[in-house]
Amino acid sequence: MTQQGTLGVAVIGTGRMGADHVRRIDEVISGARVAAVVDIDAERVKSVADRIEGCAAYTDPAAAMAAAEVDAVLVASPGPAHEAALLEAFRHDLPVLCEKPLTPDAASALRVLEAEQRLGHRRVQVGFMRRYDPEFARLKELLDSGELGRPLLLHCRHRNASVPSFFTEPMLVNDSVVHEMDQSRWLLGQEITAVRVLRPRPSAHAPAGIGDPQLVIFETDGGVLVDVEIFANCGFGYQVQAEAVCERGTARIGESHQMLVNRAGGWGGEIAQDFVARFREAYDRQVQAWVDATRRGEVQGPSAWDGYAAAAVCEAGVRAQATGERVTVELAERPALYR
Amino acid sequence: MTQQGTLGVAVIGTGRMGADHVRRIDEVISGARVAAVVDIDAERVKSVADRIEGCAAYTDPAAAMAAAEVDAVLVASPGPAHEAALLEAFRHDLPVLCEKPLTPDAASALRVLEAEQRLGHRRVQVGFMRRYDPEFARLKELLDSGELGRPLLLHCRHRNASVPSFFTEPMLVNDSVVHEMDQSRWLLGQEITAVRVLRPRPSAHAPAGIGDPQLVIFETDGGVLVDVEIFANCGFGYQVQAEAVCERGTARIGESHQMLVNRAGGWGGEIAQDFVARFREAYDRQVQAWVDATRRGEVQGPSAWDGYAAAAVCEAGVRAQATGERVTVELAERPALYR
Amino acid sequence: MTQQGTLGVAVIGTGRMGADHVRRIDEVISGARVAAVVDIDAERVKSVADRIEGCAAYTDPAAAMAAAEVDAVLVASPGPAHEAALLEAFRHDLPVLCEKPLTPDAASALRVLEAEQRLGHRRVQVGFMRRYDPEFARLKELLDSGELGRPLLLHCRHRNASVPSFFTEPMLVNDSVVHEMDQSRWLLGQEITAVRVLRPRPSAHAPAGIGDPQLVIFETDGGVLVDVEIFANCGFGYQVQAEAVCERGTARIGESHQMLVNRAGGWGGEIAQDFVARFREAYDRQVQAWVDATRRGEVQGPSAWDGYAAAAVCEAGVRAQATGERVTVELAERPALYR
Amino acid sequence: MTQQGTLGVAVIGTGRMGADHVRRIDEVISGARVAAVVDIDAERVKSVADRIEGCAAYTDPAAAMAAAEVDAVLVASPGPAHEAALLEAFRHDLPVLCEKPLTPDAASALRVLEAEQRLGHRRVQVGFMRRYDPEFARLKELLDSGELGRPLLLHCRHRNASVPSFFTEPMLVNDSVVHEMDQSRWLLGQEITAVRVLRPRPSAHAPAGIGDPQLVIFETDGGVLVDVEIFANCGFGYQVQAEAVCERGTARIGESHQMLVNRAGGWGGEIAQDFVARFREAYDRQVQAWVDATRRGEVQGPSAWDGYAAAAVCEAGVRAQATGERVTVELAERPALYR
Repeated sequence: MTQQGTLGVAVIGTGRMGADHVRRIDEVISGARVAAVVDIDAERVKSVADRIEGCAAYTDPAAAMAAAEVDAVLVASPGPAHEAALLEAFRHDLPVLCEKPLTPDAASALRVLEAEQRLGHRRVQVGFMRRYDPEFARLKELLDSGELGRPLLLHCRHRNASVPSFFTEPMLVNDSVVHEMDQSRWLLGQEITAVRVLRPRPSAHAPAGIGDPQLVIFETDGGVLVDVEIFANCGFGYQVQAEAVCERGTARIGESHQMLVNRAGGWGGEIAQDFVARFREAYDRQVQAWVDATRRGEVQGPSAWDGYAAAAVCEAGVRAQATGERVTVELAERPALYR
Repeated sequence: MTQQGTLGVAVIGTGRMGADHVRRIDEVISGARVAAVVDIDAERVKSVADRIEGCAAYTDPAAAMAAAEVDAVLVASPGPAHEAALLEAFRHDLPVLCEKPLTPDAASALRVLEAEQRLGHRRVQVGFMRRYDPEFARLKELLDSGELGRPLLLHCRHRNASVPSFFTEPMLVNDSVVHEMDQSRWLLGQEITAVRVLRPRPSAHAPAGIGDPQLVIFETDGGVLVDVEIFANCGFGYQVQAEAVCERGTARIGESHQMLVNRAGGWGGEIAQDFVARFREAYDRQVQAWVDATRRGEVQGPSAWDGYAAAAVCEAGVRAQATGERVTVELAERPALYR
Repeated sequence: MTQQGTLGVAVIGTGRMGADHVRRIDEVISGARVAAVVDIDAERVKSVADRIEGCAAYTDPAAAMAAAEVDAVLVASPGPAHEAALLEAFRHDLPVLCEKPLTPDAASALRVLEAEQRLGHRRVQVGFMRRYDPEFARLKELLDSGELGRPLLLHCRHRNASVPSFFTEPMLVNDSVVHEMDQSRWLLGQEITAVRVLRPRPSAHAPAGIGDPQLVIFETDGGVLVDVEIFANCGFGYQVQAEAVCERGTARIGESHQMLVNRAGGWGGEIAQDFVARFREAYDRQVQAWVDATRRGEVQGPSAWDGYAAAAVCEAGVRAQATGERVTVELAERPALYR
Repeated sequence: MTQQGTLGVAVIGTGRMGADHVRRIDEVISGARVAAVVDIDAERVKSVADRIEGCAAYTDPAAAMAAAEVDAVLVASPGPAHEAALLEAFRHDLPVLCEKPLTPDAASALRVLEAEQRLGHRRVQVGFMRRYDPEFARLKELLDSGELGRPLLLHCRHRNASVPSFFTEPMLVNDSVVHEMDQSRWLLGQEITAVRVLRPRPSAHAPAGIGDPQLVIFETDGGVLVDVEIFANCGFGYQVQAEAVCERGTARIGESHQMLVNRAGGWGGEIAQDFVARFREAYDRQVQAWVDATRRGEVQGPSAWDGYAAAAVCEAGVRAQATGERVTVELAERPALYR
């Protein structure tokens, strides 16, 4: 595989995210092709493969990774299947783009970290795609420039129009707020050391058993306070905003106000209805960046350490959610490979 | 009348504007009181006067102006009655706030100018209230500062939700665009030298006989081009915007976006429905500034010359509207009193 | 005193706030005049009185309140002097507009409440002027309409360019966040039941001994969570924002973005530098509303109970600030007069 | 060439635009590769080709088009060379993406039209990339939906930070306003029937011989008036805005306000400095759409007729610019192939 060669990607999992990645690699991404798709549902995987020239269908990830035409792996299967897929990819020393979460808990994430260290080099990029959103990238750049001084507070909003019926309260943390966990760690270059979850009386539209919305508060080892409004059933759309309050100024992203319409007594515009619309460009850029780096023989982006740290903060978050207490985050020592 | 004395104001005309000014002086303005109201409708004027302590009712402006308790006159009668009221006020050497138009045409406005010159000092302030709007004032201040360099273009929008059934096409110029005429002259400190009126195919909602909207273009003696969208039946609300394009930057006012609401798939807010809501503060400030200056023995604000110039540009505008041609504006020489 | 009579106001205290109120009543407010000014600094009070026709100077509030030409009292002296001034006003049964705080602590506020109850009718309006800000009023109206459903969260920002050298950490609560306390109680129609104060590592620009910024969190008896960023030395200007998150939508005020300028590679505008500029209109409307109600023989606006409740929440807030703990607010039972 | 086959593209011209397209096809676009590059500068073209695997260098467009590995042609050479390149592509029946202008004048554009008609099917897409900008696409969609009623006016702004020293006054029309010509025709689905160019006194920063800014006004056969501010040396950045005024509302795009920063007394953000930054996504989408359609055997997007119409309007525009008169646009009859 040279830089100019087309990257043959095996996509593991053909559910919503997997199917979207298949489409993306097939139609959007430069320099890569879908060489294989894998799903335990043999019928579904065959129908996906049949639509793409030169794409083989597998029900076993290991078999796909052993195929000669597979140069890299995109893991989009359910979280509990990630560990096995990652370890198998390590056996073949294949570069992996792994959808978040890296694994469902900190203990399994640590095992992945150790396996990657045994390889002696990074192979995993974790799918925290917000890092590839143009607005988030601009905010990161501004914070890193130091023009506004040191960050002190980070106000975050994360609103979904609604969540599916299988959504549970811990998923507010594990599926939704996990993005703010990674985003905070990345924007600030700091680790999260403690989590609180505060709750108003739930919305009348909150699903049974889910206290919605919630106010999640992180403390970082750099002394920043992060507050996150997570509102899973806000009704009006999908909205992700962040405002960094620094010593000499603030910066806010996520208004996403584009076409302005005056009509019927009001001014305004549309709100995106889901994360696919809001973060389409981020997903595209993420996969393109992964393909580009892989073709150059490099590994970049969120590492397995970032995946592990998110898992550890999530565990603290779920405990904080259940207890109402401030819960500290206990992280393993950061291995040299990830410094 | 000393600065501390309360100014006794005679309000001539108790129609919509007059009644609003009566309320304003009675309830909002500091240092003035409604000493007299005048209307040819004897019943209406009495009912207005009865609601205010110490307020006399007249059907004859001259009688009101002769009353001892009248220190100043606010003319809010129909335009054709303005000339007589102004000349009568001059006979009593009373300060006047005259609602626009000064008079309905340039010839009568010139007669007012001449009469005021015979007095030897300014007595008239014309009611171009946009000059007292905080946003317009800030734009004027910025242009005057020279920070953006010389103004080159001025883009104006003037939108009404709808106009009453008696509205005629010349009123688009005489009643609506007259504000942009004064505003352009004032913001730029220049005279308008020519007018064009261009027309798209009218809106389906345009009243019979009115080509709505229109695009009115002014040239000024300072070489600025002004374009004005006048849209009298835009349906969605009242909106006045202006953007000055200068050599080193642009400045825009009139968005009037305040409370931002997210709901039902959209972000946005309300648009004011009429000029009373949009320019309430400007009207209040205008009358307060007139009262304050009058109590100090001064005359400020838009002069009779400004009223005359607006009338002259209106005449050209109506001709341009009727002919589709570029029509030049012929102004009398500016008298020393107004330099 | 009839509705039409001009209200003679005694202004107690001629410091920054007092002097501004004297100017306001003299120049802006309709239907009132400054009949007396009071200050322990005899020279200063005389120089203030001398500039206003018919205004007497006093060094003793009681003497001023006994004067025949005094119909109402505006208390703008330092907080510790408020209790005595209020009790004296009660003795004369005079209507009072009392600058916040009502008194410096809950115990003294309770004494004022009791004294007013002995009068048998309300006499006090407390100077929480944000209730008179047009944007806050619109937010209140929207919340009350129920269009967005029940409020769940209220995000508040309160930023000062800088604070004077005598500012202390408890003043962050007592002088600044006290506005968000009243604003939350008023917008929501709920009492605050507990307070937390969380702190990031302070800004390098924080004055010695002040942990700036802080994140203050209120719980209400209606189950709403309120978070307040108080940043006393943000450097860039004065900014007050609030976003109510409700069951079916959110509403945000305080952007205060008016004239938009494009220049030198950027778009943007100015930020007000202090509360006088930001809330000028609110102050004017507050005093005008007080004068209008007083002339009608009515008492409206924030009551002594609101002043007491703010004092009680402040005490909890200062304790929360000092201890880092969640502190509950203990309120006396609400007397019938204030229901 | 099947849909799944990678499209081999010959890029004609390796100047600024050509080099950018080479990079785009190589790094961004899915399903295409740069099979050949052509430039009369043999050294330059070789150095470009050497950086891309499997890319041949040519100095003669005809030789490149004859190569077996070339499936399609992207013409990015100077305008005067377009006609020959297009005719050669027609000889090979190759699909072409031709950078605007189609050709430098209406007569040569007509010859291209006729040649394509002789082929009997469309082969040319013209590079009016604004049609692929997400905001313009949303505006088009809204106008087409009829929700706002019929369009009446279209206000356009086109501002450049500065123009290079070789820029001439006709280039204001031919290079800059040509975008608004196509955009107006496309958004409205109407032809332009007349052009006026009005001028303020030029900016002090206008290059010698260029009256900058100008106000260009189009009339359309659907009765819409379009006004275009073209300001080639505005100094502050690159800005393209459009507001459609319709019977029941207006819609505006191009604010491009994303990250909002508060600092140093002001709120605001950055303005893109050139069209590459502003329209990066539009360029990417345009080429991807061309590649996708070509691989499906289809031709879409702006046609040779659109290129011809733009050329005809430009000729009228340059005459209007030179004469100050209203100049009508004379279009040939629209051939069946382009209906």
